[in-house]
Amino acid sequence: MGMKAELIFVGSELLLGHILNTNAVFLGLELAELGLDCHHQSVVGDNTKRLQEVLMTALKRSDLIITTGGLGPTVDDLTHESITDLFGVESIDDPAVLQKIEALFLERKKSMPPTNSKQAQRPTGSISLNNPKGTAPGIIWEVSALCAEKLAIVSPNPKWIITFPGVPSEMKAMWQETAKPYLQAQNPSTESLYSRSFKFCGVSESAMAERVFDLFDSADPTIAPLASLGECRLRVSTKAPSLAIAQQKWSTIEALIEQRLGEYLFGYDQDTLESVCAALLIAHKQTLALAESCTGGLLSQRLTSLAGSSSFTGLNLITYSNESKMEMLGVKPESLENYGAVSAQVALEMAAGAKTLAKSDLGLAVTGIAGPAGGSQDKPVGLVYIALVAGDGYGVSQEYHFGQGKREEIRWRSSQEALNLLRKYLQGKKSSLGENAS
Amino acid sequence: MGMKAELIFVGSELLLGHILNTNAVFLGLELAELGLDCHHQSVVGDNTKRLQEVLMTALKRSDLIITTGGLGPTVDDLTHESITDLFGVESIDDPAVLQKIEALFLERKKSMPPTNSKQAQRPTGSISLNNPKGTAPGIIWEVSALCAEKLAIVSPNPKWIITFPGVPSEMKAMWQETAKPYLQAQNPSTESLYSRSFKFCGVSESAMAERVFDLFDSADPTIAPLASLGECRLRVSTKAPSLAIAQQKWSTIEALIEQRLGEYLFGYDQDTLESVCAALLIAHKQTLALAESCTGGLLSQRLTSLAGSSSFTGLNLITYSNESKMEMLGVKPESLENYGAVSAQVALEMAAGAKTLAKSDLGLAVTGIAGPAGGSQDKPVGLVYIALVAGDGYGVSQEYHFGQGKREEIRWRSSQEALNLLRKYLQGKKSSLGENAS
Repeated sequence: MGMKAELIFVGSELLLGHILNTNAVFLGLELAELGLDCHHQSVVGDNTKRLQEVLMTALKRSDLIITTGGLGPTVDDLTHESITDLFGVESIDDPAVLQKIEALFLERKKSMPPTNSKQAQRPTGSISLNNPKGTAPGIIWEVSALCAEKLAIVSPNPKWIITFPGVPSEMKAMWQETAKPYLQAQNPSTESLYSRSFKFCGVSESAMAERVFDLFDSADPTIAPLASLGECRLRVSTKAPSLAIAQQKWSTIEALIEQRLGEYLFGYDQDTLESVCAALLIAHKQTLALAESCTGGLLSQRLTSLAGSSSFTGLNLITYSNESKMEMLGVKPESLENYGAVSAQVALEMAAGAKTLAKSDLGLAVTGIAGPAGGSQDKPVGLVYIALVAGDGYGVSQEYHFGQGKREEIRWRSSQEALNLLRKYLQGKKSSLGENAS
Repeated sequence: MGMKAELIFVGSELLLGHILNTNAVFLGLELAELGLDCHHQSVVGDNTKRLQEVLMTALKRSDLIITTGGLGPTVDDLTHESITDLFGVESIDDPAVLQKIEALFLERKKSMPPTNSKQAQRPTGSISLNNPKGTAPGIIWEVSALCAEKLAIVSPNPKWIITFPGVPSEMKAMWQETAKPYLQAQNPSTESLYSRSFKFCGVSESAMAERVFDLFDSADPTIAPLASLGECRLRVSTKAPSLAIAQQKWSTIEALIEQRLGEYLFGYDQDTLESVCAALLIAHKQTLALAESCTGGLLSQRLTSLAGSSSFTGLNLITYSNESKMEMLGVKPESLENYGAVSAQVALEMAAGAKTLAKSDLGLAVTGIAGPAGGSQDKPVGLVYIALVAGDGYGVSQEYHFGQGKREEIRWRSSQEALNLLRKYLQGKKSSLGENAS
């Protein structure tokens, strides 16, 4: 029915820059998925008059107002009072809500402070929105014709107000359990927004964009480039009544993207380089040992961040010093002397040493200059070598230049390229396995 | 002069939830530091009519309007056109800006696409706000009395509009280099907001709050509790003409906080547990070896994230498998058999083994069940042991229960407590060194 939604975030901490507004991302994505247009977001402090003004502006231009914040037990929490007062309706006490709050305190072996009883109050006519994770319930309120008239809001559509607490985990649980199904029931025939993200590593955002420049003119599906450190994405979006129809709508564009950028494509949507590598390692029953120098454990941390990583990880080493490179990994003293610790040769010996020590199928090593100090004219900050060796005699050592970026950026990019090198090797195995099987 | 500021973020990607609004955090903090009140933030899409409406609302209630976004070269970038059109002023071409954009393209060995010339246009009477990092300059514009009158804006104060691109790094550079000094010059006598954060580990937010509950009533300085995973904070804030006067204003409250919560206090403001530990390791000339199991490299990654970590890190091991615990660290087979890999005894042997192998002064080890699988009734997900051994015969192995949280949460909390254990040991050394010195 083309319902227009609008978000109001209540909280002085947002205005002061003390917290990141992650609720805006969650609700923005969810509204788009429901096919609801959202043209405005506002942030306002814990102040009745200003909140009421923002509410009035929103009610005049939108049909569904969603607020977060201001539902706590303290005098600063003003959302429900502001709504009740703005529309001149009565506030009612909800005994079931009060009982639930008291029970929550009892469970935590504490007595309920009297201020919390305020959280059981809501405007007459509203539905209480259960909070499965905390003491602050929200409301779903269809503003009555009488109330709208009182405020000179003239609209052919009904108006809704939904309130959530500001705590993201509570807001999300309430959205999923109650508010979203409620809105879907109000809005059954709407098309949803579907998206598919294509994720690339080893190509810059501008180089990626150049290869698909002509596709950016497409009005439906739309295609948008996005970039983050060490990877970039193309997001294809379309409104459709179902995922199957959306997939059909974007199939032509999808084929073009894969054809033009397939060599850099490592995954889709929620895929990460580590999740893709972990899945490939498990599928190919390969074990991996890491030898990290400049990444200092970042690569190991990423690959073990996923459950099930013990099936391919037994031992990883962070060999920061030359001594540990020699003693643990068997890097030759003459290699360190002739080429330096940051060199293709040492990276290769590190990878081979880790593989031998861990008795694994694969060895992957990173050595480089993450900065800010330690660079020279010959070997500047940002110079990194990554090597991969395999039991089948495969061995490669590559040079990368990540520029004079920040230490954390150089480390992150190094871990991205190391995982990408591993991915390409394993996907190569995949196709050769595929050939064997066929 | 009590100037009221207001932020407008332009970009459909913010409404759709595709990006987090980190600009809101940066500008919120900066405005507070300048002592400027900011009561409103708005987000609006790439749409002239809606942007103009939001601008009008903002101009009526605030004196300084700051926008981000909409300054790019494409047809979607509408901020300057919307302003020019709203006030009915002429648009001028700035030849110096055009030259700079052309030079930037030349530097990148590309020819400037004709669309980029649009970025050299701005409303007559505005000052161009140089962008040291990209092609999109912003403007600083003091809205003339004539323009204000045209829009029926009646105000005793002058009105300013400042525009920035949406790219955070460009916006920040422009803010620091030009906009902030400009505003400071307009607003010379204003008090600034000063804050000091006290950071704690090993205590829950509610337990922290209980110890200083009476201080929350303080109106100036104000005191606010904040929590993130594995640590919590108290922020003390006050407006003052200088940092020295602010420090004087919060000295009493600071002493009370340190007295009541000193045992958990690990640092202030930008301090992290890893930065505090690194500084202590360097100060005491101690070297450290890590043996990580469930944290999988996270601890090593955190301690090497800081420049200079090579002075205390030589070798760290991620021993995921029982074999690597025995072979590399010398963990006894009977310890694994009798107590299991997740036990106080094995943690202690891992720490001692790492210390021996790396020939370091200290050994720190973590072994636990990060989940989601691998838990049992005896040893549930979230059970973690952390051990620290030192050359002076010091050895401790502690048990932690991090509950049935997410894998990444359990890993993070484990790394927090491991660093906190190290910090407390090193700070103990500090006080004994202090005693020796006195």
